[in-house]
Amino acid sequence: MQNSLSISDSDGLSFAPLVVLELAENTEAEAIKWLLSRIKDKQENGGAELLVEQLPCGTQEKQIVNPNVFLVGATWQRLLNGAEDSGLFKEFHDGTMRGFTNANRESFKEFQADGDGFLSIAECQHIIKRELDNLRAKEESHVPGYPKLKLYPGKSVIRRLQSKGILIQYFPLHDKEELKRLSSNWYKKIRLSFQPLSDIRHYFGEGLALYFGFLEYFTLALLPMALIGIPYYMFDWEDYDKYVLFAVLNLVWSTVFLDMWKRYSAQLAYGWGTLSRKKAFEEPRPGFHGVLGLNPVTGREEPTYSNTKRLLRIYLVSLPFVLLCLYISLHVMMIYFGMESWAMSIYNEDPNFLTSVLLFTPSIIYAVVIELMNLIYRYAAEFLTNWENHRLESSFQNHLVLKVLVFNFVNCFASLFYIAFVIQDMALLRHSLATLLITSQILNQVMEAFLPYWLQRRRNKKVTKRVRRVMGDQELPMVGQVQLESDMNTYLGTFDDYLEQFLLFGYVSLFSCVYPLAAVLVVLNNITEVYSDGFKMCHVFKRPFSEPASDIGVWQLAFEAMSVIAVVTNCALIGLSPQVQAYFPEADTQLILTVVAVEHVLLAFKFILAFIIPDVPKQIQIKLAKLEFESLEALKKKVSMCMCASVFDC
Amino acid sequence: MQNSLSISDSDGLSFAPLVVLELAENTEAEAIKWLLSRIKDKQENGGAELLVEQLPCGTQEKQIVNPNVFLVGATWQRLLNGAEDSGLFKEFHDGTMRGFTNANRESFKEFQADGDGFLSIAECQHIIKRELDNLRAKEESHVPGYPKLKLYPGKSVIRRLQSKGILIQYFPLHDKEELKRLSSNWYKKIRLSFQPLSDIRHYFGEGLALYFGFLEYFTLALLPMALIGIPYYMFDWEDYDKYVLFAVLNLVWSTVFLDMWKRYSAQLAYGWGTLSRKKAFEEPRPGFHGVLGLNPVTGREEPTYSNTKRLLRIYLVSLPFVLLCLYISLHVMMIYFGMESWAMSIYNEDPNFLTSVLLFTPSIIYAVVIELMNLIYRYAAEFLTNWENHRLESSFQNHLVLKVLVFNFVNCFASLFYIAFVIQDMALLRHSLATLLITSQILNQVMEAFLPYWLQRRRNKKVTKRVRRVMGDQELPMVGQVQLESDMNTYLGTFDDYLEQFLLFGYVSLFSCVYPLAAVLVVLNNITEVYSDGFKMCHVFKRPFSEPASDIGVWQLAFEAMSVIAVVTNCALIGLSPQVQAYFPEADTQLILTVVAVEHVLLAFKFILAFIIPDVPKQIQIKLAKLEFESLEALKKKVSMCMCASVFDC
Repeated sequence: MQNSLSISDSDGLSFAPLVVLELAENTEAEAIKWLLSRIKDKQENGGAELLVEQLPCGTQEKQIVNPNVFLVGATWQRLLNGAEDSGLFKEFHDGTMRGFTNANRESFKEFQADGDGFLSIAECQHIIKRELDNLRAKEESHVPGYPKLKLYPGKSVIRRLQSKGILIQYFPLHDKEELKRLSSNWYKKIRLSFQPLSDIRHYFGEGLALYFGFLEYFTLALLPMALIGIPYYMFDWEDYDKYVLFAVLNLVWSTVFLDMWKRYSAQLAYGWGTLSRKKAFEEPRPGFHGVLGLNPVTGREEPTYSNTKRLLRIYLVSLPFVLLCLYISLHVMMIYFGMESWAMSIYNEDPNFLTSVLLFTPSIIYAVVIELMNLIYRYAAEFLTNWENHRLESSFQNHLVLKVLVFNFVNCFASLFYIAFVIQDMALLRHSLATLLITSQILNQVMEAFLPYWLQRRRNKKVTKRVRRVMGDQELPMVGQVQLESDMNTYLGTFDDYLEQFLLFGYVSLFSCVYPLAAVLVVLNNITEVYSDGFKMCHVFKRPFSEPASDIGVWQLAFEAMSVIAVVTNCALIGLSPQVQAYFPEADTQLILTVVAVEHVLLAFKFILAFIIPDVPKQIQIKLAKLEFESLEALKKKVSMCMCASVFDC
Repeated sequence: MQNSLSISDSDGLSFAPLVVLELAENTEAEAIKWLLSRIKDKQENGGAELLVEQLPCGTQEKQIVNPNVFLVGATWQRLLNGAEDSGLFKEFHDGTMRGFTNANRESFKEFQADGDGFLSIAECQHIIKRELDNLRAKEESHVPGYPKLKLYPGKSVIRRLQSKGILIQYFPLHDKEELKRLSSNWYKKIRLSFQPLSDIRHYFGEGLALYFGFLEYFTLALLPMALIGIPYYMFDWEDYDKYVLFAVLNLVWSTVFLDMWKRYSAQLAYGWGTLSRKKAFEEPRPGFHGVLGLNPVTGREEPTYSNTKRLLRIYLVSLPFVLLCLYISLHVMMIYFGMESWAMSIYNEDPNFLTSVLLFTPSIIYAVVIELMNLIYRYAAEFLTNWENHRLESSFQNHLVLKVLVFNFVNCFASLFYIAFVIQDMALLRHSLATLLITSQILNQVMEAFLPYWLQRRRNKKVTKRVRRVMGDQELPMVGQVQLESDMNTYLGTFDDYLEQFLLFGYVSLFSCVYPLAAVLVVLNNITEVYSDGFKMCHVFKRPFSEPASDIGVWQLAFEAMSVIAVVTNCALIGLSPQVQAYFPEADTQLILTVVAVEHVLLAFKFILAFIIPDVPKQIQIKLAKLEFESLEALKKKVSMCMCASVFDC
């Protein structure tokens, strides 16, 4: 890290750039001047006290497309202060994690000399982002040069500029050296080893590292299921003789896996210092709008929006829309079943190669249609959630996740439920499951990594050419890098990645007792997923800002809900198995009551198990308690010291 | 309050006594002297800095039974410091609740002059208890006068003396004036009004006030159910025609009631300043023993006990014992059913008055036997939980509650479940429910309040006589009061009171659709319960120390678990009703599947509802967020002030 922050003289920069700010090409000079001075200004004057410089952009005549690109950096001292302000946790010399304070910085492990290299680049970039976001308007009533762009005291300048399109984007720069090291440890070679989670966290932050940690954990947890599944498939245990056993196994597995992940993630988060980090006060999200009013919490002036209006929008527009979409989705499903039986009847009339191809067509078409519907619905959901005008990014995310999850769940699993419980055709269920799983996997991998990569490469070539043409043979690697990266796609967060894993988890936990190979397919998919996701993070997308995270958030809940549904589904599948039905040859009633009783016991057991297993491992609990105890003790001492001082004053 | 803390010269005391310490009669003089000096010693020297004096106890020849009774008090300044140390929340001048600090005490509402009357007596007593509990051994290796009574640095002196029987008890004194006022507002007159919760909290602390708040809330919530229940009973709707409706109502009611209580209790706790109060570091409970070791959290020397051993005790001894007791309880139930059918056969042979009395006998015997078994089991459960050697009072309580709950649940409801779902005789179910409910209510009221009161009055007369004899005609009201109160029974906490409400909740939510009068009976019971509980707190038991509490703890969970069981039971009862069965005349299968589906939907709806309704009302959330935001801002300012200061230093 030390190396990469040293100054490359050839670029003519006086500091190591960390973050790129890109303003619109036609921004008024006055506004630019004002923004830069606010960024550079001392903290006492309400500035961000950061270093900022314009990217060299060629001579006036032959400019690179947009000249308004700025590089932002900071001095080490400023970064250390920022680290304290943002409540960063670092490893103390005694091995515990503590909130970093500049005053006793020497007591932190790995702190050397003037602090150079103590913070990772991702941390520095996060701190700079935080300082930029916290840059607030003072007396300005509007952005200089833009009389219509109103400001009010306390409004985040960056967010206002961003929502009005003057600030096009700001993003952290890749560090080529470190990126090379990371990618060679991570996905460049195919070998049997765990992912370098700590390096990933170091480079991309905790949020992404937790995703990759989850991906790995899930894949490893699936291995036993996959190993058991192979003989089921190989020896063609199609008589469903053994699948009661498999369903029970499935059920215990999904409960234990999720609880264990919670503990493992707490352990990871503790080691990364995000577990006990306090959440900062959440600012309104950039897109939030409304009439100016007083925030009841901060007492600051900010836009307010009536909660009743939002609830009306949610329940009168969004909810009906979602229900309509679900209805359409179910309708499409029924059409698919119509096509399926039509194809079957044609094949039965004249079984040849062509008609046997036709036999597979409805499934493939349906899989493609599902993907398309998901895509369209996704846009609609984003639009609606945006329109609901949530104040906080977190509640925006929760409403979006909920909308998308419900639709995707119905879209992906409705046909399987229909086949399993209405048609009750296990052979068809197996067949559909396989088709759906394989099609969606291939589509995902292509859409997610290879297509963007191919587009990216074409663009890169263009940009390199353009930079060469403008800058001539000057050795300005920074300019080229910034231009390349600013043209890359923006990574939109882990949403889609988690969604994919959620659906895969559904395929495995809901129905895999009918098609035990599902676990095998998911394991194979996830192994390639690690490589393609790693590749995509390093080379396809702009580097994302590191986001501190202590767990996988709403997804934990989503996976747990799925595992509850899995208990119900598996019990019902067991009840449908001819083997179990043979035990109750006379009374169907008896069979159903038994299955329901078993299901209730299992659900109760599941909740009790989730309740008994502590969410945080004992060792971590002790460490957290220790920290809290010490801060209490320190407070007591401080109070008595103050009392002593006041006594001496008298 | 101001009055009661003034000094009554006639008692010869130099301060207002708040807490009574009673040592064993044969305590060594050396130990007494040491303890008193430690209590009086300055805080800098590790003392408690409290005021303490011996209770005047007559001349040597004709002493009152135990002369080693001491009165403890404190100066106002000491109490204010203690309030700050214990993290007490008080109302700030702007109406929010804030942690009290001595430094800006003037900014708190109701703070006047030197602080006299700012703290309630219950708060003062709680502070003194805390200071006494926190009195720790310094260099002493044993209690002076008792070489065998080992101490080690940091060990709580009071807890050691208590566990070894030298300290017999310590309890807060009643305040006769305030008690009179409280009881006349509370239960002395029969009228239509809410309980004076804030006065109760003022006198007995938050824990008890929350119990009475819950009692009231539960009773009020039952009113609509009771009102609907009366016509059901009056017009003899025995054809079960309407009880599907009643079951559905029941179900929605129990979910909404519990969620609303959570919100209401958060509101109460906020107003009382316990909602955001931080939990202090929990010390080992007095009965905890083990070899000396280092506490991993505090680093202090204290007894340690292997967790594995404890788990072995729990799973190899306690769990089998509980299961055995459950088995016995079920066995007793089967005997009851045998008796019942025997009585019925005799009645059928010769129906006359004697045999019709015999018809009721089994139920009454069974109700009494259940109460007895509960009582015996309770002792066994306490013994076992004690033997499990839990380190913390809270985990001791949780294990005890769990043991007692499970047994009481089976004991009270097993027979009803048996009648409802095995025998499927709704008339018998109604009959048993009524008998159980009425018998247990009468028994409870007698055992809980009237019997102890009667015993108490007999004792009081004796004590008064004895005091008169010893002290002659001297006017020493304090001596008499202390002697009377120290002989009163100790209130063992809200456990039994909550347990009773839990079982009543069970009767109403599980089966009341069969016997709608249950809600009416419970309402009647609870109205008298308010009076008898209020009376018992004020006159039967010693005053308990006030305990800060922000919710009803593990009981919320217990009530919620019961309401989930209620959904299942009610759905099953609906399925058994002839009315519903008439809809599915041919296929039982269809009926069962429908009922199960409805049950699943209801359960899902219940969980979603519990998830959507926020646990804390919006207004309180805003206030809490405001407090947190301000403390964050204050921290920032402090940091920048420190930076300024260091600049000036340079």
